[in-house]
Amino acid sequence: MQTVRVYAPASIGNIGPGFDVLGLAVTNLGDVVEARRRRSPGVSIIDIKGDGGKLPVDPAKNTSSIAAAKVLERLGAKGGMNIVVEKGVPFPSGLGSSAAGAVAGGVAANLLFGDKLPKDELLLACTEAEAAVSGGFFADNTAAALFGGCVVSSFSDGKFKLARLGGIPDAAIILATPEFPMPTKKSRAVLPKTVPMKDFVSNMANTALIVAAFAKKDAALFGSCIDDRIVEPARRKLIPGFDDVKAAALGAGALGCSISGGGASIFAVARKGLPLDRIGEAMKRAFKNNGLESKIHICNIDTRGARAIGGK
Amino acid sequence: MQTVRVYAPASIGNIGPGFDVLGLAVTNLGDVVEARRRRSPGVSIIDIKGDGGKLPVDPAKNTSSIAAAKVLERLGAKGGMNIVVEKGVPFPSGLGSSAAGAVAGGVAANLLFGDKLPKDELLLACTEAEAAVSGGFFADNTAAALFGGCVVSSFSDGKFKLARLGGIPDAAIILATPEFPMPTKKSRAVLPKTVPMKDFVSNMANTALIVAAFAKKDAALFGSCIDDRIVEPARRKLIPGFDDVKAAALGAGALGCSISGGGASIFAVARKGLPLDRIGEAMKRAFKNNGLESKIHICNIDTRGARAIGGK
Repeated sequence: MQTVRVYAPASIGNIGPGFDVLGLAVTNLGDVVEARRRRSPGVSIIDIKGDGGKLPVDPAKNTSSIAAAKVLERLGAKGGMNIVVEKGVPFPSGLGSSAAGAVAGGVAANLLFGDKLPKDELLLACTEAEAAVSGGFFADNTAAALFGGCVVSSFSDGKFKLARLGGIPDAAIILATPEFPMPTKKSRAVLPKTVPMKDFVSNMANTALIVAAFAKKDAALFGSCIDDRIVEPARRKLIPGFDDVKAAALGAGALGCSISGGGASIFAVARKGLPLDRIGEAMKRAFKNNGLESKIHICNIDTRGARAIGGK
Repeated sequence: MQTVRVYAPASIGNIGPGFDVLGLAVTNLGDVVEARRRRSPGVSIIDIKGDGGKLPVDPAKNTSSIAAAKVLERLGAKGGMNIVVEKGVPFPSGLGSSAAGAVAGGVAANLLFGDKLPKDELLLACTEAEAAVSGGFFADNTAAALFGGCVVSSFSDGKFKLARLGGIPDAAIILATPEFPMPTKKSRAVLPKTVPMKDFVSNMANTALIVAAFAKKDAALFGSCIDDRIVEPARRKLIPGFDDVKAAALGAGALGCSISGGGASIFAVARKGLPLDRIGEAMKRAFKNNGLESKIHICNIDTRGARAIGGK
């Protein structure tokens, strides 16, 4: 291939209780990287669209180009690439924007140079790229963006352990993203260093049950397990109106609601067939009552993950 | 029915990282309760076999009779029952002996009086009965003994959340039970009250991956996730030779190895087709080198759970 367009979806890190372990890809929001092969080595950013001029065009500071460069290095590729990044995931919003950018860039590089990198190595390259920008090495968002659906990930001794669980056909996700930037570093700074034993057991149980819910395609069980005793209590104070938004979502019929990744986006889980718009409107109104404008997205689970959407 | 014989399997609490959340029923070891209906209310213990005379025959102190009485109460049963308990699960061994006894008693009572109790209530009665004797309310063993296979359980706000995951056909379990009694209270006393954040994440990830391994019937993933950073480090010192036994199991080909429940039994996970006897012998030898005799059981996962094995 000489050119390729790759789409990578937004994702919900943690999915409530599963801090740094669970990630879930969603539809309707994603980044695109358009890449063109060139003879000279390296990765250049030709343009970034949709970022309001806020992202660095220095290829050493952008997750898409960093991931692409890491993939080229692992492939031992002869030649390099020029990329145009089209940001569709808002940032910093807790929706895995840097992960979507990294995965779109990494997958584009792999496809341009023969699609030869094993999936594990591709994930590693993308996760390293995200870490270079966000400051922490965690695959919850990159694995979800790369593989789609719900992904369990763990990294130790230089290796990933992964499980891909796909979607739940009758579960819908409602996202409320306020105009309130929350840098990952800030949301990590409030985390406790130790966890009470009973909260550890509670979060572990709910995380295990979310995995079971995806295995059994059980939307009700999924929603009932969005119960985070550790991270949400620490981060909720950072998001103006969080308690009101959560109460509004649950009051309008959502099965569960928590903070997406590091925030400030809030996600709710609902069963399809419910008036999903009404849940979104209730969340938007609750943010508004707390002085914040917000954007609502009614999503499905993206079960496909990163994919070529053009090229030749 | 006028009489019934009910079998309930032994089980591995925690399955390594999943403290108080995961349980796994195994074949080859189980309790039997033989029950006969009577007109007068209450539950009497006629005999207990296989316990070496160590268990109380006072029905207020035995898990089988307590569970049976709680079931009768919930059913509003007219009449009572006489039971004979046949202990097949050693105690205190970390193999869910009190849970197997409770579940066999509770299920026997339910079957004698029309099999009308919803599964959730049956589990609650059996778990309360186990708690009355062991001192802690946890369904990891009772849920596994009742339902079979791997079960995720969580109890909050008076309700269970449960997921039944069945077995993994090509996984085998090797149990080594030393002649070293470990009361549940003693093994609970050494547990930490708080947990470092990174250990919480590690245990949660491995627990979530074990659930995924059962969903995908993946013995290799299952074995690779027997990695407990929280409870095993606290309890290993209580079991003479634990490190040697674990090293011996892994050295002989086991995929993973940890403490079963509160101990002192140690379980290893292996793939069928391996020389399972050799893993068992290596574990037995390692205990022996530490001055302890032990019994080895090569088991499958019991996917059926508690069941009637006779009656009329």
